[in-house]
Amino acid sequence: MDLLIVNGTVLTMEPGAKPIVDGAVAVRGQDIVAVGPRESVPVPAAKVLDAGGGLILPGFVNTHTHLAMVLLRGLADDLPLKEWLEQHIWPAEKAVMDAETVKLGTLWAAVESLKAGVTCVCDMYFYAPTVAEALEQVGIRGVVPESIIDFPTPSCPSPEVALEKQRELCERYRQHPLITPAVAAHAPYSVNAKNIAKAAELAEEFDVPFLIHVAETRWEMETFQKEKGTTPVQYLADLGVLSSRTVAAHCVHVTAEDIATLAELGVGVAANPVSNLKLASGVAPLPQMLAQGVKVGFGTDGAASNNTLDLLRDAQIAALLYKGVTGDPTCMPAPTVAALLTRGGAEVLGLGKVVGTLAVGKRADVVCLATHEPHAVPVYDPESHLIYAARASDVQHVVVNGKTLVENHKVLTVDEDALRREVFRLAPKVRGAVEAVKAKG
Amino acid sequence: MDLLIVNGTVLTMEPGAKPIVDGAVAVRGQDIVAVGPRESVPVPAAKVLDAGGGLILPGFVNTHTHLAMVLLRGLADDLPLKEWLEQHIWPAEKAVMDAETVKLGTLWAAVESLKAGVTCVCDMYFYAPTVAEALEQVGIRGVVPESIIDFPTPSCPSPEVALEKQRELCERYRQHPLITPAVAAHAPYSVNAKNIAKAAELAEEFDVPFLIHVAETRWEMETFQKEKGTTPVQYLADLGVLSSRTVAAHCVHVTAEDIATLAELGVGVAANPVSNLKLASGVAPLPQMLAQGVKVGFGTDGAASNNTLDLLRDAQIAALLYKGVTGDPTCMPAPTVAALLTRGGAEVLGLGKVVGTLAVGKRADVVCLATHEPHAVPVYDPESHLIYAARASDVQHVVVNGKTLVENHKVLTVDEDALRREVFRLAPKVRGAVEAVKAKG
Repeated sequence: MDLLIVNGTVLTMEPGAKPIVDGAVAVRGQDIVAVGPRESVPVPAAKVLDAGGGLILPGFVNTHTHLAMVLLRGLADDLPLKEWLEQHIWPAEKAVMDAETVKLGTLWAAVESLKAGVTCVCDMYFYAPTVAEALEQVGIRGVVPESIIDFPTPSCPSPEVALEKQRELCERYRQHPLITPAVAAHAPYSVNAKNIAKAAELAEEFDVPFLIHVAETRWEMETFQKEKGTTPVQYLADLGVLSSRTVAAHCVHVTAEDIATLAELGVGVAANPVSNLKLASGVAPLPQMLAQGVKVGFGTDGAASNNTLDLLRDAQIAALLYKGVTGDPTCMPAPTVAALLTRGGAEVLGLGKVVGTLAVGKRADVVCLATHEPHAVPVYDPESHLIYAARASDVQHVVVNGKTLVENHKVLTVDEDALRREVFRLAPKVRGAVEAVKAKG
Repeated sequence: MDLLIVNGTVLTMEPGAKPIVDGAVAVRGQDIVAVGPRESVPVPAAKVLDAGGGLILPGFVNTHTHLAMVLLRGLADDLPLKEWLEQHIWPAEKAVMDAETVKLGTLWAAVESLKAGVTCVCDMYFYAPTVAEALEQVGIRGVVPESIIDFPTPSCPSPEVALEKQRELCERYRQHPLITPAVAAHAPYSVNAKNIAKAAELAEEFDVPFLIHVAETRWEMETFQKEKGTTPVQYLADLGVLSSRTVAAHCVHVTAEDIATLAELGVGVAANPVSNLKLASGVAPLPQMLAQGVKVGFGTDGAASNNTLDLLRDAQIAALLYKGVTGDPTCMPAPTVAALLTRGGAEVLGLGKVVGTLAVGKRADVVCLATHEPHAVPVYDPESHLIYAARASDVQHVVVNGKTLVENHKVLTVDEDALRREVFRLAPKVRGAVEAVKAKG
């Protein structure tokens, strides 16, 4: 064995599986080769990770984020959406988001993600090759697209160039152990029908995920209803671009018919509860989606609207939120939410056979969660503990693709302190860009 | 000076105050004697706490909790309310909650609270003298009542005995530097009108807080409307027991008239967003209360329904929740929520002149929050950072009443490891009690 993870209660997150008290996970190369009670798992191993009596579980899967936006975390909050975007986020992006800055932001976001137990991130930003490179450097698993949108972006002067870059990306990263290339169209209101169709065709051609923002805001829903007499989901369904490879971010404003469509076509929904609350977009009907068999995972969205990449927090807030708004305390129970955080997310990204549970033959993406801090004692039920009491700061060790990336809360693959210094150096430039816009009036 | 807290951005939480970059707080005995830019604060001091470039702010004030219930954290979740209480919480309490267990639970809860930046807790449980003793031992500030209810409790065979014990408590703890004695009546549906009035009179006599659960559930609201033709708030107002010394926990189900009454009488509301969501009680109309000038603070409620004592999380979830449910992204902005977490809570508990802000002449209840972990970098706005990005685990140092209780995440006044071992020993007894009830059917 190359790696043995021991001394914890194992939550495999396989459907119907019971927690394994004093369990262990054995890893050879990239793969899980044994999971079970400690005495059933082969020894010795080149390396042993001790979970310290805590929980051993699959890494969390962040199905929707904009990684490099960690650099804009907390830059502007509590604002109307238009003012937030036009006077703060866009000017800051325009001023600083070149390839080098995206690299820094992605590295920093990957470090934050790993320390919060996230082992797989689905990004949606610019400079895809740079993003992929940063994720590889840290060692985290990632789904990486170049985004297409009907106007110039920092990395692409036109949708045509974006499509060409997406093709190159798909060719370069097919069969990569960590990076899944993907194709993204920004949203049904920002990319014309022809370009959305081209993007979806490209995803089909390479058999990769097709990412798109859908029905995030009431404005989007109302605009489609008024201008096209349909909903964003039905519009995309009518275009023929929705399929089991689609990752539809948000889906806050969907009708019962939309939900049936998402279920029927096997579309995966990336739910972003914290961002949807913070931007006042609303509350996506997750319980209804789950009841109809829609694939659902959680996403943090970008740190400009979250303001962290703490996916566990998104899951925890979802578990609370839906009880409160439905009036049903049994809604979104801990085992359901824990499954969405791990297995559900993997399935949304088309990685359900690769990661998302601890099972023999899957890649070893594993988190050890400590349970000794006062807020974590006692633990009567491990899934309940994960969803109602645990914190990102309890994440002690993280393994991705068989490699130990975090040990005792320390990231091993990059120099966290050096990155922090670079982020500190950049922040005044970001602030300055926004102040310059303000000064212009 | 006895203590100097330096090297951080000071958020005094005084109304209208701006963050003080590179600020400092000086302490003599129990009191804050200077707050301002570092160079303006007198030196030297017997002890210096270095905030490491993070934030220096008032401790968080938990206006409603049931401390010893940390021992039941995660024992039963995702259940209908009746089943949760009758088949899990009450049997467990009956089996284990003697004075000794309440002591252990309160000590453990105080440790958890401190490590999460909470410097003042308003408890509502049994064995008040034991609770007060435990809080004193840890050194945390507390508001402590003996609860009156119309049936026997673990510590009182009758409401009459409870009233007598409340009187003794008020006499014993008047003028205590850390413990504020209080009088509690459980709720308008569980204590008869005569006893509620007696409790309120006793609070009046000793000039101490009067605590009561009010309008937590839809059931309570509907029962009062059906059986008495009024609301729980109006019922209490008509009894003449509501005043500026009242701490009304929950107030989820209140009418516009109720809100006006709460404002007019100066009642403080202890809002428990996480517990109210988790138990599916609903969403208290905090924005409306604040607009009408009602005093509001946050509470965690007991850890059986939270499942932690992480008050910062309650504040953060409130900031998100009200945006999402109102559709207004400017609702409950960070500075408002940060104020409720500190000053607002102190005012609700009648301690507004004692704690809640960093001001000369107030007691020194101070928290240093680190801002170096990846989720905390960069910080563009300290209040926004506190409410949208910070975590309880960022709490580095905690001072209560001038005394350093937590330094570099370590509690100095009690043996955390020894307490943890005791909680571990107790947990199987708690679980056994619930299983015995199940076995009986």
